Amino acid sequence: MAVGLTAPDPASLAPVAGVELGFAEAGIRKANRRDLMLMRLAPGARVAGVFTQNSFAAAPVQVCRAHLAAGASIRALVVNAGNANCGTGEAGLAAARATCDAAAALVGCASTEVLPFSTGVILEPLPVDRLVTGLPRCVETLAADRWAEAASAIMTTDTVPKARSARVTIDGVPVTVTGMAKGVGMLQPDMATMLAFVATDAAVSAAVLTTLVRRVADRSFNRVTVDGDTSTNDSFVLIATGAAAGPEIADADAPAARALEAALVEVAAALAQAIARDGEGATKFITVDVQGAADAAEALRVARSIANSPLVKTAFFASDPNLGRLLMAIGNARVAALDVARVNLWLGDVQVIDRGRRAATYREEAGARVMAPAEIEVRVDLGRGDAATTVWTCDYSYDYVKINAEYRT
Amino acid sequence: MAVGLTAPDPASLAPVAGVELGFAEAGIRKANRRDLMLMRLAPGARVAGVFTQNSFAAAPVQVCRAHLAAGASIRALVVNAGNANCGTGEAGLAAARATCDAAAALVGCASTEVLPFSTGVILEPLPVDRLVTGLPRCVETLAADRWAEAASAIMTTDTVPKARSARVTIDGVPVTVTGMAKGVGMLQPDMATMLAFVATDAAVSAAVLTTLVRRVADRSFNRVTVDGDTSTNDSFVLIATGAAAGPEIADADAPAARALEAALVEVAAALAQAIARDGEGATKFITVDVQGAADAAEALRVARSIANSPLVKTAFFASDPNLGRLLMAIGNARVAALDVARVNLWLGDVQVIDRGRRAATYREEAGARVMAPAEIEVRVDLGRGDAATTVWTCDYSYDYVKINAEYRT
Repeated sequence: MAVGLTAPDPASLAPVAGVELGFAEAGIRKANRRDLMLMRLAPGARVAGVFTQNSFAAAPVQVCRAHLAAGASIRALVVNAGNANCGTGEAGLAAARATCDAAAALVGCASTEVLPFSTGVILEPLPVDRLVTGLPRCVETLAADRWAEAASAIMTTDTVPKARSARVTIDGVPVTVTGMAKGVGMLQPDMATMLAFVATDAAVSAAVLTTLVRRVADRSFNRVTVDGDTSTNDSFVLIATGAAAGPEIADADAPAARALEAALVEVAAALAQAIARDGEGATKFITVDVQGAADAAEALRVARSIANSPLVKTAFFASDPNLGRLLMAIGNARVAALDVARVNLWLGDVQVIDRGRRAATYREEAGARVMAPAEIEVRVDLGRGDAATTVWTCDYSYDYVKINAEYRT
Repeated sequence: MAVGLTAPDPASLAPVAGVELGFAEAGIRKANRRDLMLMRLAPGARVAGVFTQNSFAAAPVQVCRAHLAAGASIRALVVNAGNANCGTGEAGLAAARATCDAAAALVGCASTEVLPFSTGVILEPLPVDRLVTGLPRCVETLAADRWAEAASAIMTTDTVPKARSARVTIDGVPVTVTGMAKGVGMLQPDMATMLAFVATDAAVSAAVLTTLVRRVADRSFNRVTVDGDTSTNDSFVLIATGAAAGPEIADADAPAARALEAALVEVAAALAQAIARDGEGATKFITVDVQGAADAAEALRVARSIANSPLVKTAFFASDPNLGRLLMAIGNARVAALDVARVNLWLGDVQVIDRGRRAATYREEAGARVMAPAEIEVRVDLGRGDAATTVWTCDYSYDYVKINAEYRT
């Protein structure tokens, strides 16, 4: 089902010195599937994260925020699939803390040095006993070259594991970036996406890492949407082990930081695109470019209005150049005092809207031609300013309804 | 397909003195179907309207706004289905004005005394010649008792015509209110809905009518959503012919105005609910009540977040008590500083969320029981204040995708 996306070749995923990964079949929700992942970090690794803006932030998100805010060094991350541990009150917080306790005992660190993550069904109690029982198996399998298997252990309705590596040379020193992500529904990340972990062996100061995690999220996970529904469990975590040679990056605007940021964005944007390509029921991968906006927020509002419109998404599914729906979605983005006579829109290389109206050169056959492929690009120029953005999304198919009508059964 | 909704009995639709309706098969988009409607008003009728907030307001919406703003008396409304005359630039405005010219010549009034309305496909030129050719047939069929047939002539993907009457006695004088509406997709009206016309024989001052059209819209059409997509052509028009006996209502807060408002809301809310019941592909009719909000805007934001969530809508389609999705949607409404520990939620008579977490009394069987019927009520208490609102919507089914993937073909 995923559009132009296959499982990553494990050989393409470069280990990051200082990071080991293990996994297990813990039976959190279903038997005989990987659903528990442990990431162990070498002492000295720095970790920064951004999390969902949903008011009902899940228990593990609350615990992550507390542990990171306390400035604890982080030695392990524990991720379970099958249950979101959200809407679970004090019992849910206790379960998340018990997860940390169990992992800390196995790894040999303090409980506050563990970050817990959960993904799956909301409003159901986390079977923390099964999780704790599965953790020793995670420890047994720990290895630096297990990114592909670890990525498969955090999947829910994903059809393909999502992981990616990049290499960059900074001040003459080779640096590795490797990351994984999951999530294909309830997905319009606002500060981050439903579980993404990116690690580098670069040495990065805590302050710069905090800056980078936001910058990278804004250029990757915050630019993807499947259904406009921001999850309760969104988490994006950036890890810098410092195992590579080279001085610590301590200035977020220095060339070294910019070079690292580019490599991080390369990995994170590929993961974000993989999420849209594997969007629930997706048959099309759609890139929405908005330019000529007055500011970045306006560009994002227009891009999301297009990307989240059910009418636009079903037209893409049908390969139907019902292009008035794009016009409707732009007009629906509440851009103050939009002069529609300055709006232009292209579908691939075909101009559809010329100064606010149907382009005189537009022919239905040309629209049908560019709607046919599995990958489609929409480009809008608002004619108001210099701000631009790109959002990635997918279409709405019968299978989106099927997957979400049958998810729990 | 419509949920608990059948075509209105023509005998239930009371004529409004001063209003006549005619219709024709003009072949605007397809042959052999009613697609043109003319409403003729007696001299002295007052008319007020509210229109879409979409930036790409269609050409007829622009012409309506201009004619109403000019303070012209209104003698006729012309409505075509099959083509929205939107994204059509100057040619579209000329077509809308030509429609007014033709109707004015037939009715015997000035062109500015005609309001044009269009609904259908966006970005395609309006075949105004066919429309003008069909108008004389509309005039031939004009009669006061044609509300049911007229309602069928303005339908697009509607499966059932929508019309309703109410009677109210004001200061001892019997007053009639009758209205019609259309629209089942691209539907989250913001100031009004995609074509609704409500007429009364009450005598109402222009200022009061302008107040009433907004008050009524806010309590009816602005509270319904099918897919969250605000149309380019939304129009709600309120007509007061003054043909009933009784003094002119000139104070919007006098008892007479409040009595009339109640009757108008009775008709308009029934039409708005009919729109959700006939929502594209609908198998369920869902009422979302939000109470305990800090203000009305917050209540509406939460209600719409629930009503527009694709995940909530597909769970309703499946009759699946996947209730974490409701929690997610509430958390997604960006209520500043929402204390989730004060949030309660009921599905029908079953409490699902108790102080922000799964209610201890909740049983899956009870959730399944209240999800099974075709009509479902969700009630949320935010525990923040006294504001409340109600939104009506429908589920997302396979047929929503099918209808919108095949709409133009």
